[in-house]
Amino acid sequence: MHQQPTYVVLLLFFLPCPPISLNFILECGVDQEQCELDRGVNAEAYILAGPRSELAFDPKQCKAAIVTCGGLCPGLNTVIREVVMCLRFQYGVDETYGVCAGYRGFLDPTSWVYLDESLVKNLHNQGGSILGSSRGGHDTIEIVNSLEAQGVNLLFVVGGDGTVRGAAKIAEEVKRRGLAIAVAVIPKTIDNDVPLLDRTFGFETAVDVARDAIEVANVEAEGFPNGLGVVKVMGRNSGFIAMHAALGSCVADLVLVPEVDFFLDGPGGIVDHLFERISTNGKAVVVVAEGAGQQLMQDMDAAGRKEKKDESGNVQLNDVGPWLCKKLKSGLDDRLKETSKHGDGLTLKYVDPSYMVRGIPPSTADNLYCLQLAHNAVHGAMAGMTNFLVASINTRECYVPIDLVANKRNVIDTSHQSMWEYVVFSTGQPSFQMNRDAEDDGDIATTASGGIILPS
Amino acid sequence: MHQQPTYVVLLLFFLPCPPISLNFILECGVDQEQCELDRGVNAEAYILAGPRSELAFDPKQCKAAIVTCGGLCPGLNTVIREVVMCLRFQYGVDETYGVCAGYRGFLDPTSWVYLDESLVKNLHNQGGSILGSSRGGHDTIEIVNSLEAQGVNLLFVVGGDGTVRGAAKIAEEVKRRGLAIAVAVIPKTIDNDVPLLDRTFGFETAVDVARDAIEVANVEAEGFPNGLGVVKVMGRNSGFIAMHAALGSCVADLVLVPEVDFFLDGPGGIVDHLFERISTNGKAVVVVAEGAGQQLMQDMDAAGRKEKKDESGNVQLNDVGPWLCKKLKSGLDDRLKETSKHGDGLTLKYVDPSYMVRGIPPSTADNLYCLQLAHNAVHGAMAGMTNFLVASINTRECYVPIDLVANKRNVIDTSHQSMWEYVVFSTGQPSFQMNRDAEDDGDIATTASGGIILPS
Amino acid sequence: MHQQPTYVVLLLFFLPCPPISLNFILECGVDQEQCELDRGVNAEAYILAGPRSELAFDPKQCKAAIVTCGGLCPGLNTVIREVVMCLRFQYGVDETYGVCAGYRGFLDPTSWVYLDESLVKNLHNQGGSILGSSRGGHDTIEIVNSLEAQGVNLLFVVGGDGTVRGAAKIAEEVKRRGLAIAVAVIPKTIDNDVPLLDRTFGFETAVDVARDAIEVANVEAEGFPNGLGVVKVMGRNSGFIAMHAALGSCVADLVLVPEVDFFLDGPGGIVDHLFERISTNGKAVVVVAEGAGQQLMQDMDAAGRKEKKDESGNVQLNDVGPWLCKKLKSGLDDRLKETSKHGDGLTLKYVDPSYMVRGIPPSTADNLYCLQLAHNAVHGAMAGMTNFLVASINTRECYVPIDLVANKRNVIDTSHQSMWEYVVFSTGQPSFQMNRDAEDDGDIATTASGGIILPS
Amino acid sequence: MHQQPTYVVLLLFFLPCPPISLNFILECGVDQEQCELDRGVNAEAYILAGPRSELAFDPKQCKAAIVTCGGLCPGLNTVIREVVMCLRFQYGVDETYGVCAGYRGFLDPTSWVYLDESLVKNLHNQGGSILGSSRGGHDTIEIVNSLEAQGVNLLFVVGGDGTVRGAAKIAEEVKRRGLAIAVAVIPKTIDNDVPLLDRTFGFETAVDVARDAIEVANVEAEGFPNGLGVVKVMGRNSGFIAMHAALGSCVADLVLVPEVDFFLDGPGGIVDHLFERISTNGKAVVVVAEGAGQQLMQDMDAAGRKEKKDESGNVQLNDVGPWLCKKLKSGLDDRLKETSKHGDGLTLKYVDPSYMVRGIPPSTADNLYCLQLAHNAVHGAMAGMTNFLVASINTRECYVPIDLVANKRNVIDTSHQSMWEYVVFSTGQPSFQMNRDAEDDGDIATTASGGIILPS
Repeated sequence: MHQQPTYVVLLLFFLPCPPISLNFILECGVDQEQCELDRGVNAEAYILAGPRSELAFDPKQCKAAIVTCGGLCPGLNTVIREVVMCLRFQYGVDETYGVCAGYRGFLDPTSWVYLDESLVKNLHNQGGSILGSSRGGHDTIEIVNSLEAQGVNLLFVVGGDGTVRGAAKIAEEVKRRGLAIAVAVIPKTIDNDVPLLDRTFGFETAVDVARDAIEVANVEAEGFPNGLGVVKVMGRNSGFIAMHAALGSCVADLVLVPEVDFFLDGPGGIVDHLFERISTNGKAVVVVAEGAGQQLMQDMDAAGRKEKKDESGNVQLNDVGPWLCKKLKSGLDDRLKETSKHGDGLTLKYVDPSYMVRGIPPSTADNLYCLQLAHNAVHGAMAGMTNFLVASINTRECYVPIDLVANKRNVIDTSHQSMWEYVVFSTGQPSFQMNRDAEDDGDIATTASGGIILPS
Repeated sequence: MHQQPTYVVLLLFFLPCPPISLNFILECGVDQEQCELDRGVNAEAYILAGPRSELAFDPKQCKAAIVTCGGLCPGLNTVIREVVMCLRFQYGVDETYGVCAGYRGFLDPTSWVYLDESLVKNLHNQGGSILGSSRGGHDTIEIVNSLEAQGVNLLFVVGGDGTVRGAAKIAEEVKRRGLAIAVAVIPKTIDNDVPLLDRTFGFETAVDVARDAIEVANVEAEGFPNGLGVVKVMGRNSGFIAMHAALGSCVADLVLVPEVDFFLDGPGGIVDHLFERISTNGKAVVVVAEGAGQQLMQDMDAAGRKEKKDESGNVQLNDVGPWLCKKLKSGLDDRLKETSKHGDGLTLKYVDPSYMVRGIPPSTADNLYCLQLAHNAVHGAMAGMTNFLVASINTRECYVPIDLVANKRNVIDTSHQSMWEYVVFSTGQPSFQMNRDAEDDGDIATTASGGIILPS
Repeated sequence: MHQQPTYVVLLLFFLPCPPISLNFILECGVDQEQCELDRGVNAEAYILAGPRSELAFDPKQCKAAIVTCGGLCPGLNTVIREVVMCLRFQYGVDETYGVCAGYRGFLDPTSWVYLDESLVKNLHNQGGSILGSSRGGHDTIEIVNSLEAQGVNLLFVVGGDGTVRGAAKIAEEVKRRGLAIAVAVIPKTIDNDVPLLDRTFGFETAVDVARDAIEVANVEAEGFPNGLGVVKVMGRNSGFIAMHAALGSCVADLVLVPEVDFFLDGPGGIVDHLFERISTNGKAVVVVAEGAGQQLMQDMDAAGRKEKKDESGNVQLNDVGPWLCKKLKSGLDDRLKETSKHGDGLTLKYVDPSYMVRGIPPSTADNLYCLQLAHNAVHGAMAGMTNFLVASINTRECYVPIDLVANKRNVIDTSHQSMWEYVVFSTGQPSFQMNRDAEDDGDIATTASGGIILPS
Repeated sequence: MHQQPTYVVLLLFFLPCPPISLNFILECGVDQEQCELDRGVNAEAYILAGPRSELAFDPKQCKAAIVTCGGLCPGLNTVIREVVMCLRFQYGVDETYGVCAGYRGFLDPTSWVYLDESLVKNLHNQGGSILGSSRGGHDTIEIVNSLEAQGVNLLFVVGGDGTVRGAAKIAEEVKRRGLAIAVAVIPKTIDNDVPLLDRTFGFETAVDVARDAIEVANVEAEGFPNGLGVVKVMGRNSGFIAMHAALGSCVADLVLVPEVDFFLDGPGGIVDHLFERISTNGKAVVVVAEGAGQQLMQDMDAAGRKEKKDESGNVQLNDVGPWLCKKLKSGLDDRLKETSKHGDGLTLKYVDPSYMVRGIPPSTADNLYCLQLAHNAVHGAMAGMTNFLVASINTRECYVPIDLVANKRNVIDTSHQSMWEYVVFSTGQPSFQMNRDAEDDGDIATTASGGIILPS
């Protein structure tokens, strides 16, 4: 109840774009100067996505390649389908090849798959990626060599943060060599953690399954004395899946995400909170993102753990699920036995849906979003744009230069006036920020049920 | 390929809000002047939704009422749940009553349902509205009498266009009488046709089921010689469900919506288009919104039909589904018999999912959206705002004065650069605008497969 | 409470089968004599299905064909998949062809599809039939000519009653010509109306969707004053889908099936029953099978209707759904207006899921059943059996001579001690058999809620 | 191809039941003698379930109690619903109480829940048990004391093996005391491992989710180089869920169940089998029941493990999932690196759906089965039967004495002519029975793809 009410001013200008030359040069960019000249305001402008009146390529001489990299995500197959369909039926580009098993597939052109209509037409109902995927395997020079040798002039890359950086390197090398190859990126991350973007494809589908897991955990928690359901969901660096699924399920008592540090014991800790909930309601449900509590795990169990890295150089996360279960069992079991009517301890049920949130076909909304992204990627590439990604920004489909989003990661905004506030209110969970609260919110009393009673 | 590429300039200003007085006066509004003064730009500004630091009501003396009106929509029960939960646990307002069967329920306060936590806690998984609904029954004077008699000071109205206008009248009468009753509206329309708003709740859920129906129609069309699947979906004045479901299903050959006039016979008509598709692919699928082709039906069958109105004064639509089936059967059957290898006529399969698209529980995304809308409605009302509706605009949660959206209806933008273009391209259907095309797009040739081959 | 309690005696003998000669024997049969000789009891015996130790065909010289006929049904594609897989991987038969568009496809061998592993491996997740289907088109002589000309010696026919009769004719003609062609039938009917069989594939899947439609109708009925939901489901001659879906949904107040005559007005009629339900509960739900009430419709509206037949000679049903809605509207509207507190009439919502119950992929249980049927069909044919169908009888997989089930149709057993009794009890609907009840059940009083109160 | 073809003889006699006296008789039984006298055959006979013409209890003086024990299972809530509905509307028994949290709830009658219609009417759509459950807590003397003190004369117990034995003890103590309390059992086990019974409720629903998990594992396996998906499903002592889900999914390469011992390395071991599959197809999928491989784990890792028991005295299983993953990783990784074109090792993805297979609402078929079981339990108890359970045997609904099934457990029949053969054929997995195969099946050669090529 503490933030200042505010207005939102939304200005939407549609500026004319400079004509695209058939001579290949275009780099997608943000025309800051143009904005300022035209309107006298300081603002960011993104190029509106869509088909262009002039093309940089002769469709009859185009050869396209598409590659999917990194983890699977609902909608990958739809993106493949729609890139092929748009190239074929809107532009008459018949030669589109699927590069297998991620970036490494460029090194083995004999494994490329010719993507004709019959092969892709039912893909929108299939989970996974028919091209396969992999991590790592990026070798910029070899990839551009391969593109050049095969005569590819349209490259579509679907992948996450590392993949996007790789695509930028390819575009740079292409430019350095003076080649006429357009590099378009369709960003993919099931964690929905790309800055600027409204959302990433597959996210809603994943949230739906994560919610199923939370509801099952709630059923189990309700089904036994002093039941506690713990659900781990994806989210290495950001807790969007946890947040959305928990809110959509309406049953979570605690949501732990990488963005918010928490602690176990003592006043304001999660053990006290859950003890109170189980004592009051007979059960509680915890949703934890896989990246939550990493620091805490290291601090508490320093001896037994050390940082490991996988082949791509990513830090391997410690598994927060079983760790948390163990801590909650030991923190709650005896306390509940002492206070329960029948001397019951804790009944803990752990659910880890793991790949079940991402190995499924996309929802209709995600299918449609994939279609938009894929078509816009094709439109941009055919118009001679390169080194760009397609995105929905403030509900508009746009083209964005890769370097605007590469190396950045979106996280949950935990400030006031954000969706995170719904989590705090709906779960009634502690803020884990005792000091700040003590200063700022001295007049706010948290109720037993976790809500806030306002001063009358 | 004809529109001009453009930039999108997005300016987002968050202006401080004038302090809310404890004296009850606030009307939600758009502070145009403030924007101009502060920023020197001409733009629309909406008040950002969320909890306020000062309240207009003492929660201990609050009595809230909620009513659902008009057709059912996935998410109604979640809205009810979350209004109750937010009032109770964030503000300590314990007295919330459900008004049964729409506006008419105000006249019979004995039928009101006291909504406690146990009654609402599982509502987010139930289709329909536990309060029931109805059309019409609005009597402004009687309703305000009832509110006054029962001591209600927070009124939450969930409904469509007619309902929203009714809420505005209630707010006016409340103002006229100088009562301290806040009137908050959560807009509901499964057709997603409210202007300004990003979307309305329940829409995505409905689209998912509509897509199932389209896929079944496609399976049937594929299953028989010269198969034609026809699916009718909701959409009286706008075809958003038809458009989204058709695109999400990836199998539609023709989408008919109220926004686009079409014709049956002759070049550029739908019969020719479907004949070509069935001849080429062996099958075709048509998605038709219930409001499509109304004028055409009257023109072609003038004698047998006349305009009827229902009790609320809405024009009763003629049923386009069976009519279209009959016309397509007669237009295609003989032609196919003549040209088919085995002399087969048309095999037409008609699917009308009707209430199956709206009588189901909301998807997770819709559940979450309902939660946001309901909480924001409560926050606004508790802060003393009235005569407003809650909405997501350009991905921000806002408060909007009712008169900004009442009496207006959003329709599909069929101009270039719009989602409708995806429909035209993915279906390859005719534009039904021969003249304009002839002038503007002289250099564009439509291919047999419905796409566009660009000049090389 | 009137039937006599009884015992069930289940004898399961597994008798040794006479050895199958490599000389082609043919003719699946019921060895009545063998049973009597061995056991001295009078019973029916069916041959247990499964692989045989001796084969009638050399797999290397086999050529198989499979055809799907009649209406679509969930699981058709799984049957196709598994026939191909079993032939290929259990017997080494590589040549399996799909005959397109039903029986007529035999006349055009150029349209046959070679079914390799890659084509069929994902079929179990697809609705419909990739081979397509059709009604009619059976020409015994031409079909056997075609089989002979193409060198087919294993024929798998998937279809309903008419199709099965056609298969028997093919087997006879094959025998007459002294050909070594095995004809195996996998019976298909979404209505589950084959005598002897435990169930037919696809039925459970269809029931699941039918239940969804019933629940939606219930949500609509609950959502409006004096709501009545009417759902029409498949079932031309038997009401199994209606019965199972209604029981599984737990919300039906009336189930109308072809097996039970009913009447509209007067005591014990459906109008009285529904009036009582709506008056008591505020709503009611009716489930009607498409074949119900055909005689009544003719009797009541003799002038406007006459019997029509389709191309296969089947009587075309009059559409009971809209007819029933009209009659219920006129029978209930005024009565409710007179008696309702607010003068409300009837709010009727009609749901016809039509093809949505059959155009979908099979449930896991149906998939598994299809696998069993397909494999057993292959085992039987490879062992030299012909003119037989595969079936589950009393939970055992068996081979049954076609003439045992052809020309017969299973209907709901409406006697006491049957599943129909659950319908009568759970809905509380009238028995429509006043006379018999009056005689037999004089001491049973039906309660207002439709149940039976027993004498104390 | 080795078993003898056989006939199945099915004899179904419906014998008249001796009249049930209003004097309380008790004891459901199998009337072996009666069968032999009447028919001169040696067979087992079970009493056909259903309502009786004479009752042992006056409905007006009945008080019923229902309790759910052990693990959750889809359909528990439907059973509760239908017991209440049948008692109330078919017999006029209004007093039904829910005993909370399993057997222990009998000791605290103040916690019993009065089950009226409004409380139970929507239960069929909810997972879990509204009464809650627990393990253990059985105290025969205290329970019968409680029943006597509360005046309960109809007791409905829903639970698994241990629960059923507890119910038998209650019935014995009731008999010893000469009380008129009927004890009816509705058997519950998600593992489907009760002997005699066709199936147990909830099983099909669980199989459906388990299949989803398998399909996700397959998508992941397909998505990466040398992908191996491993799915652990429920099944402590029997592998029915694993078997049905694997067959229904059509994608498993290996199914491990408690009934079949297996080994890892060497010819005929699972590592060789999976290496061959991954080398050939690029991926493989393993389905493992939680009770599989327990002995092997102990043998291989004797030092680190010892048998633990839970509070009920059940042996705690070692977790086969992670153990198997570790073994497969070490057994396959290096071998694949050596042989793969690009030097790829194994990509292993582990899915453990755990409670997601059981915490969900029942399918329509399971709902209907629960309805039948619940009603028949009520009919039997009202007729004065006790110490019995309800069951479907060879598709007939029957009453069975508890001691016929208690202390016994059904396991997969792995002999020839069984469903397990489909698993072996469809997966092509080794038989793990080298010796027997060598003797019996000398002329059968297993193909590379796992099928069997028959001698020509």
